[in-house]
Amino acid sequence: MAATSDGARGGIDLGGTKIEALVVDAVNQVLGSARRPTPVEGGPEDVAAQLVEAITDACSSAGTEPAKLRGVGVGSPGAVNPETGIVSRAGNLPGWSGSFPLAERLADQLGTRVLIGNDVQVATEAEFHLGAGRPYQSVLGVFWGTGVGGGLILEGRPWLGRAGAGEIGHTVVKINGARCTCGRRGCLEAYAGRGAMELRARRRVAKGEHTSLFKLMEERGRSRLTSAIWAHALEHRDSMAIELIDRAVEALGAGIASAVNLLDIEAVIIGGGLGVRFGEPYVARIAEAMQPHLFHDERPPNVHVAGLGDLGGALGAALLASR
Amino acid sequence: MAATSDGARGGIDLGGTKIEALVVDAVNQVLGSARRPTPVEGGPEDVAAQLVEAITDACSSAGTEPAKLRGVGVGSPGAVNPETGIVSRAGNLPGWSGSFPLAERLADQLGTRVLIGNDVQVATEAEFHLGAGRPYQSVLGVFWGTGVGGGLILEGRPWLGRAGAGEIGHTVVKINGARCTCGRRGCLEAYAGRGAMELRARRRVAKGEHTSLFKLMEERGRSRLTSAIWAHALEHRDSMAIELIDRAVEALGAGIASAVNLLDIEAVIIGGGLGVRFGEPYVARIAEAMQPHLFHDERPPNVHVAGLGDLGGALGAALLASR
Repeated sequence: MAATSDGARGGIDLGGTKIEALVVDAVNQVLGSARRPTPVEGGPEDVAAQLVEAITDACSSAGTEPAKLRGVGVGSPGAVNPETGIVSRAGNLPGWSGSFPLAERLADQLGTRVLIGNDVQVATEAEFHLGAGRPYQSVLGVFWGTGVGGGLILEGRPWLGRAGAGEIGHTVVKINGARCTCGRRGCLEAYAGRGAMELRARRRVAKGEHTSLFKLMEERGRSRLTSAIWAHALEHRDSMAIELIDRAVEALGAGIASAVNLLDIEAVIIGGGLGVRFGEPYVARIAEAMQPHLFHDERPPNVHVAGLGDLGGALGAALLASR
Repeated sequence: MAATSDGARGGIDLGGTKIEALVVDAVNQVLGSARRPTPVEGGPEDVAAQLVEAITDACSSAGTEPAKLRGVGVGSPGAVNPETGIVSRAGNLPGWSGSFPLAERLADQLGTRVLIGNDVQVATEAEFHLGAGRPYQSVLGVFWGTGVGGGLILEGRPWLGRAGAGEIGHTVVKINGARCTCGRRGCLEAYAGRGAMELRARRRVAKGEHTSLFKLMEERGRSRLTSAIWAHALEHRDSMAIELIDRAVEALGAGIASAVNLLDIEAVIIGGGLGVRFGEPYVARIAEAMQPHLFHDERPPNVHVAGLGDLGGALGAALLASR
C-alpha cells in the first residue's frame, strides 16, 4: 500500500507522433517516465495497447505498478468526452475516425481509474498550475506544432465553451487566404502549422525551388519535417525555411493579437513542438508580431515560452487524476 | 416619495451621433424617454450638459424628476473606469481626448447617484438580461454601426478581461489588409464599420465611380451616410452599396466565426445601427458567412438580431443603476 498512499498518479500525453508517459508524486514531481512512438497503423485498440505499455514502463522506472496508482490521466487529441471517457474523430491517430471508449479500456487493463481530457486543454492547465502561467488568473495557451492548438484559463478556471473552445488555429487571419489542412481557407494553422508548412515546402520543391529541409530530413532518417529539422534549417540560413517561418510568425502575431483584443487576457504562453524547440527568441518575435495589431497596445499581455517544455501535456494529464 | 419608492431608474446611451435617455420602472418597463443630438463641438462639459437635459426630459415624460430616481446609468464610449466614473479618450466625442469625471459631474447636477459603464458592454448585458440573449449563459454581442464593437457574457457573467475586452472590431481578418480607422491594418472594422465604408465610398467617388449614396445623403439633409441611407441604397440596388455591404458581411462572418472557434459560445447577438436597421435578413447572411469558417460546423451557435433594437444601450445603462 505504500505507493498508493503516496498519491502517485500517472499522466499520458497521446500525441500524433509520440506517447509520453509520466508517474508523479502528490506534489507533481516526476518519479518516472517513458516514451513510445504512436502507432501509425491499426486502430484505437493498438493505440490503447501502446498507452498501457508506456505507462507500465513509466511505473517500472518509478518503482511501482499501474494498479497502485491513484489514477491515470490521458491528454488526447480528437473530440473528448471527459464524462464518458470516449474519444471520437482523432484524425491524427490511425483508424480513429469513429468513437472509442478509451478510459474504460485503459481502466480495465491498468486496474486503476482513468480520466481523459483534451490534450491542448490539459497542457494549458499544466502551464497554469505548474508552469509559466502560475502568476496569472487568465491565460491563453498556444501550442505551435503540427497544428496550432489553443487552451483558455479565464478567472482561474478552464474555459471549454460547449466543449469545443480553444480552436485558435482556425482563426481566419486572411479571408480567401491559403488552404488549411482542415479544408477551410485562411486559417492561422494554414500559415503556421508544421503540417501546412511542410506541404507548402513540398509544393515549392516540386516547382523546382531549392531548400535543405528535405535533405536534412533524409540525413536524420525521418519521413516528416520535425521541429528539430526546421530549427536546423533556420540555423543554416535556408531561405525557404526562413521565409515560411517568417510567415508563420506573422500569422501567429495576427491571430493571437485578435484573441487578446477579444478577451484582454493577462498572459499568452507559447508551447508545442515548434514553440518549445524555438524557445525564447521566437516567442519574443511572436510578441513583436502581435504588437501592431493590439488595440490596447500600451499594455500588451505578457508572452512566455511554456515553462514545462515537452512535458506539459503529460503533467497536465496527471493533474486530471488528482481530482 | 412615491416615484422614488417605485424604484424608477434612468439610463442614458451616449452615442457618437445621438444621446438616448430612458426612465424605467423596477421591472425595466419604459416610463419615459427623450433623444438629443450629441454635441459636435465643445468638450466634455457640453456633452455632460446635454446628458442632463436628455435625462431631465425623459423624467418629465415619465412624470418624475432626476433627483427622485434611484440612480442613473450611462453607457459611454471611450475608456471607462466604473469605480471612479471617469471617462477617458472618447475619440468620437468632441474635445474628449483626455479624462473627465463624468459620473461626479452628472451626480452633482442630477441629485442622484450615477454609474458609468462601457456602452457596448451595457448593451450586451441588456440583451442578455432582457433581450435576445435571455435563453443563454454565454453570449457574444456584436454591435455593427459606425464601428464594430463587441461584448461578452461568459457563464452568465460579463467578461471584461483587464477592463478592455470585447474589441472584436479589431480582429485581424486580413493580414496586410485595408487600413482601419484605428490606424491598423486588416481589422474587421476596416471592412464592416460604417465609418470605414463611408470613407471607402468617398474615395471611390473621387476616382469617378458612381453611387446614389451621397445623393441620398444630401436629399435627407445629412452630413454622414446613416444606416437608413445605406438601407435605402441597398433597396434601390446601388451597386457600390451592395458591393461594400457584401464585403462587410464577409468580414463579419470571418471575424465572428474566429471568436466562436476560440470561445465556443452558445449565441451571437447582432445589434448596432446597421445590425438593427438591416435586421433578420442580414443577420441570416452573417450566419451564412460564418459557416465556412466554423471549426465545429455541425453545431453553429445561434445568431440573433438584437431583441431590444435601438434601446438596448439605454436599457443596459439603466440596469447599471439597479445594483
